[in-house]
Amino acid sequence: MGREEFLEKARAGVKEAYLEKDRQLIQCVNAIDEIDKTSNLLFERLQEWYGIYFPELRVKEPEKYCELVLRIDRKSINREELSRIVGEESANVIAEKAGRSMGVDLGDNDLGEIRKLAKEILNLQSMRSSFEKYETGFAKGLCPNLTYLIEAPLAAKLIAHAGSLRRLANMPASTIQVLGAEKALFKHLRNHTRPPKHGILFQHPWVNSAPKKERGRIARLLSTKIAIALKGDFYSKNFIADRLKVDLDRRMEEIRKG
Amino acid sequence: MGREEFLEKARAGVKEAYLEKDRQLIQCVNAIDEIDKTSNLLFERLQEWYGIYFPELRVKEPEKYCELVLRIDRKSINREELSRIVGEESANVIAEKAGRSMGVDLGDNDLGEIRKLAKEILNLQSMRSSFEKYETGFAKGLCPNLTYLIEAPLAAKLIAHAGSLRRLANMPASTIQVLGAEKALFKHLRNHTRPPKHGILFQHPWVNSAPKKERGRIARLLSTKIAIALKGDFYSKNFIADRLKVDLDRRMEEIRKG
Repeated sequence: MGREEFLEKARAGVKEAYLEKDRQLIQCVNAIDEIDKTSNLLFERLQEWYGIYFPELRVKEPEKYCELVLRIDRKSINREELSRIVGEESANVIAEKAGRSMGVDLGDNDLGEIRKLAKEILNLQSMRSSFEKYETGFAKGLCPNLTYLIEAPLAAKLIAHAGSLRRLANMPASTIQVLGAEKALFKHLRNHTRPPKHGILFQHPWVNSAPKKERGRIARLLSTKIAIALKGDFYSKNFIADRLKVDLDRRMEEIRKG
Repeated sequence: MGREEFLEKARAGVKEAYLEKDRQLIQCVNAIDEIDKTSNLLFERLQEWYGIYFPELRVKEPEKYCELVLRIDRKSINREELSRIVGEESANVIAEKAGRSMGVDLGDNDLGEIRKLAKEILNLQSMRSSFEKYETGFAKGLCPNLTYLIEAPLAAKLIAHAGSLRRLANMPASTIQVLGAEKALFKHLRNHTRPPKHGILFQHPWVNSAPKKERGRIARLLSTKIAIALKGDFYSKNFIADRLKVDLDRRMEEIRKG
């Protein structure tokens, strides 16, 4: 085989490797994760910075806080606009606090810079929404069985953590159950602490809303069905999730009844 | 003193504390720092993600890479646009690489999401420029002497690290010299390692472009003059930096001559 021919083959092989669809999904999952970190960092900064002007403003939802920074001036409150953003009740509290604020009176120039930061955090949030929508569509196409059983973003996180759909599909249920809890798992193996009962699957509402002592059983149940669904998605390419879901719901009902 | 009166006084005191101008400057310095971290994180993600489509694309400047992601399609390269962004020479290299790329052919839908990320990184960069301009104006107003001796962003970083202009103005030159190298300083005190020769001041071009053995002396010289300039900015409010600068340049010349 000549050198050129050899290179051509190598290139084709690499191209194939790049074709794995899940690589794209994983990039998107990680991007969302990084947007979250980024938004949190910048939102904390915004609260501290704007806190010079209006330290008494407390709003839990970052988006609403940003909206307030952008649209409300504490020295001449637009009550209608304020109510629109936070609702009547909170509007009263905020307006009262604004009237007796201990904050420094900043100029338009200073507030203008702070508002750029608020705008940017909203931009990041809107990008996040777009990515999540894309991720959901992508995951549904890639693993229809898995995403029938659990929400697409959670499915995407499992794939991202495993590194590829193939790897995830080859994992036994017991590994899927604790995927993402590697630290606790190794600690268990080294120091004989209790083994972890769940990793990423803790994010499933059935697990995190259950009483603590039942969470392990529910995570185990979920991971068993997930492992079967994955064989369907990666190997047989059959849609089997409707039957799996019926079985899953039935067993969950049994656990709930005790 | 009645309760209301007392509260009123307390509020006035807090208001005064909030009035310290440097608090605003410090917020801006930290915001820039966080934008840098954020941009780096998102830029690495962009390169990995877009790398599925065009793994051979290598451009050092993040802004240019983002521009390319936004404006160039590797499957139908617009040579004029490409040259405009990276220059004639690099354009040839990139066009050649595009012709034999090993990347996956992504759809418009996929590329659209990646482009949102590129756009966002450019937004962050433009916000950074705006903040730096603001920071410079702010620092020049707050400490005309200090910013006459060293660049405003570096002056702002020193103030931010000290916590306030007052604290920085009260520091001896020897502390200013190693400000930002606290870790190395404590290591020196505990383990008798070599003391640090410079901290944040390493970012001054005189220090980082000097031969290693001269850096300590230059940092010492700078910090001595900075300490004097700060007394002028915080206490006497006189402009003394022109004379300081003449002296500083003369001594630097002596060090350069050996």
